[in-house]
Amino acid sequence: MEARNASVAIVGAGDFIGAAIARRFAAEGYAVHGGRRQGDKLADLAAEIAATGGRFTGHTLDARTEEGITAFLDTAEADAPLEAVIFNVGANVNFPLLETTERVFRKVWEMACYGGFLAGREAARRMLPRGQGSIFFTGATASVRGGKGYAAFASAKAGLRATAQAMARELGPQGIHVAHLIIDSGVDTAWVRGMMASRGVEEVPPDTLMDPASIAETYWQLHRQPRDAWTHELDLRPFGESW
Amino acid sequence: MEARNASVAIVGAGDFIGAAIARRFAAEGYAVHGGRRQGDKLADLAAEIAATGGRFTGHTLDARTEEGITAFLDTAEADAPLEAVIFNVGANVNFPLLETTERVFRKVWEMACYGGFLAGREAARRMLPRGQGSIFFTGATASVRGGKGYAAFASAKAGLRATAQAMARELGPQGIHVAHLIIDSGVDTAWVRGMMASRGVEEVPPDTLMDPASIAETYWQLHRQPRDAWTHELDLRPFGESW
Amino acid sequence: MEARNASVAIVGAGDFIGAAIARRFAAEGYAVHGGRRQGDKLADLAAEIAATGGRFTGHTLDARTEEGITAFLDTAEADAPLEAVIFNVGANVNFPLLETTERVFRKVWEMACYGGFLAGREAARRMLPRGQGSIFFTGATASVRGGKGYAAFASAKAGLRATAQAMARELGPQGIHVAHLIIDSGVDTAWVRGMMASRGVEEVPPDTLMDPASIAETYWQLHRQPRDAWTHELDLRPFGESW
Amino acid sequence: MEARNASVAIVGAGDFIGAAIARRFAAEGYAVHGGRRQGDKLADLAAEIAATGGRFTGHTLDARTEEGITAFLDTAEADAPLEAVIFNVGANVNFPLLETTERVFRKVWEMACYGGFLAGREAARRMLPRGQGSIFFTGATASVRGGKGYAAFASAKAGLRATAQAMARELGPQGIHVAHLIIDSGVDTAWVRGMMASRGVEEVPPDTLMDPASIAETYWQLHRQPRDAWTHELDLRPFGESW
Repeated sequence: MEARNASVAIVGAGDFIGAAIARRFAAEGYAVHGGRRQGDKLADLAAEIAATGGRFTGHTLDARTEEGITAFLDTAEADAPLEAVIFNVGANVNFPLLETTERVFRKVWEMACYGGFLAGREAARRMLPRGQGSIFFTGATASVRGGKGYAAFASAKAGLRATAQAMARELGPQGIHVAHLIIDSGVDTAWVRGMMASRGVEEVPPDTLMDPASIAETYWQLHRQPRDAWTHELDLRPFGESW
Repeated sequence: MEARNASVAIVGAGDFIGAAIARRFAAEGYAVHGGRRQGDKLADLAAEIAATGGRFTGHTLDARTEEGITAFLDTAEADAPLEAVIFNVGANVNFPLLETTERVFRKVWEMACYGGFLAGREAARRMLPRGQGSIFFTGATASVRGGKGYAAFASAKAGLRATAQAMARELGPQGIHVAHLIIDSGVDTAWVRGMMASRGVEEVPPDTLMDPASIAETYWQLHRQPRDAWTHELDLRPFGESW
Repeated sequence: MEARNASVAIVGAGDFIGAAIARRFAAEGYAVHGGRRQGDKLADLAAEIAATGGRFTGHTLDARTEEGITAFLDTAEADAPLEAVIFNVGANVNFPLLETTERVFRKVWEMACYGGFLAGREAARRMLPRGQGSIFFTGATASVRGGKGYAAFASAKAGLRATAQAMARELGPQGIHVAHLIIDSGVDTAWVRGMMASRGVEEVPPDTLMDPASIAETYWQLHRQPRDAWTHELDLRPFGESW
Repeated sequence: MEARNASVAIVGAGDFIGAAIARRFAAEGYAVHGGRRQGDKLADLAAEIAATGGRFTGHTLDARTEEGITAFLDTAEADAPLEAVIFNVGANVNFPLLETTERVFRKVWEMACYGGFLAGREAARRMLPRGQGSIFFTGATASVRGGKGYAAFASAKAGLRATAQAMARELGPQGIHVAHLIIDSGVDTAWVRGMMASRGVEEVPPDTLMDPASIAETYWQLHRQPRDAWTHELDLRPFGESW
């Protein structure tokens, strides 16, 4: 692959969607920076991407602080001009209402919504002078539906979605592509398979869980869209998913 | 009017919608408790309602703290069983994205979303043992649309709406009526009329701004709905409003 | 009750919601006209309302024809100025896609959508010179969700909802109140109870089905709204309904 | 390019989006069949695609009849197994409500909604035995918003969208990818540029109108999505568009 003089920053570079997005953009020659709570967990991903000739740097990042986000994006920008920032922090919890503590409600919001606001705003600050760049947010079913037990999670995700809309309406005309992806299903991970096994599902039929690589491909295609035809929102789910 | 052995608590008993709701429920014989940042500003409203034979008590309340909400609702409940809790805190601000500080984003959320979560949860805690009660939330256009400059406000309002949905789905089957009202227009206040005058609108045509009393009537009708036909969400706007 | 010099026309005056709306408005003194496919089935309702001192006239009406709608509304208008027109034609069917014939798709649309367009347009034509009146449409879950097997029904109901929106935006500023009610549940009828019994539900818990009278009350309250605070859309479901 | 043993049928192969989709799939080696009211208008497109080594056959098609749709899809299927059917019939009209005749309302529905139902159902009938295929529908802003003057068009487009949803929920688990694309802007055509000129817009800034090729690229990327991560709905608009 040919190296590009451009960087991508992934806020919430977890083991699944975040890692797959890192691989996808690295394969296109970007200098990819990934941040997560425990940055040392990104060593394997960095090694894997390096082995394919790609560039990936892992960072320890508390996405809930302005200092954390600012330093993270500054590092990526110092490496190469930021071309995409992807906010992918999850915080899926379910509690009965009376057991949803203030601490949980606030923490889920800080992770899933406030961090997204910070990442989007700071991405915009760096991209606007160049009049281009992508800012993408990972959403969930809860982004558009407040289900039972999801007061904290749905509230944060709906708040993130509204933030993304407001950003899109302000930044779009200035050349920044803001998109929100509603991931409406479980991703194919060991944890999900374990959960299903514990519920008596012995064999998971093929393609009924989402391969993170398939999700990442859509992030990449969104980034490739020319600015005369941008998507702001789309959903993603496996073919067999009921919705 | 005949006094009822039931109380209503209004979180965010401002000069307009909150005050009108207070008048409406007081006129039905409820012991109404209103809380706002500066409780002393409620003296006139209390006097006015008392003059009509109604009951209204004003409180100083910081709706962003669990202690504040808990104490407020405890007082109302001690007066008479809580039959309705109405969350009516506004926080409408508009800032360009890059000028939306962390402080603003967080504060607007604390006022417009987090306070609503606390009020709803604590209302439920007191109502559930009786298997009845109403919990209503005041929404806005921003609850369903993230407009330019509204990252903070729309995010908080969308978060509140999702919270209300999650509560409705959990509490409805237990007899608690949770509703969300989208107030899609300016209310008829001296401030709005002043704004319009400053924009050159010399005469405001009749009924093109919302009378708080008209809005309050809909809160009352929602509360009256029998539990076999509850509304969870509705919008309200004047006849001439463009939307 | 005191008779008003005003009429109400119900297109789709079936045994349940339509009949309940007829009773509710008749009880307020309106001259109510109800139309349905077989007008002779309205004799009992007419007798019942007459016995309470109200006015109700039943009509045979094919709501899918301009001539039918025009003649029906002309008759009501000749009786007394039309103050409300309520479109309440149902056509709930569920078929696998490949078994949904053109005839079914077209017929369901003609009944549930096209008839609503005709009724709304002709209501507007008669109300606009007076600058007031209500035009209400009965919606369903399918109005906002295209569920499996509902290609025909959901398509027609979504089409009706869009028609109502377009009408509201054009007619609202001219004083006509257009509203759309999403009835999201089964109504309490012998047929529904029979269905449930056949599925093994022996006892239907109280208030888990909607009493048509409860639904009709909301139509009445919408009609009563002053024009400075109109609702365009609301949902209605029983407290225990899962959604 | 390498020829594939697969065909694509475009219902509503107009000069812009439809033609661009034809070019895009032809460039991937599909046997593309395009149908429109006056099939002879497709001669230039056929010649152009043939000149690039692609395959395109133009057909005269009345998409509002079962016979027309059936014959059209049979021809494509006889050529090579149908892998994608794209319904792209437009019918954008705006009339004041009282001037929206039954004829207009019905005709717009037949073109924009009923034809889509027929195309989708007949596509499914041919694809289901193979357990794969794409059925895509072109939507518009009116698909999700009933604007003033759009009773006919919005009603038809909302009906089409609901049809697409019902199809997706039934056909998805059987391997058929159903998607709905909301094209929220004017496409870059001589007609639109003429309209803008007549409104005094002398120079259209670059990328503020959508290039049909950019839109077509998104149809192609949707078709490429693996079945474990399908998008059902997305929007498309130029960067500067206000929404």
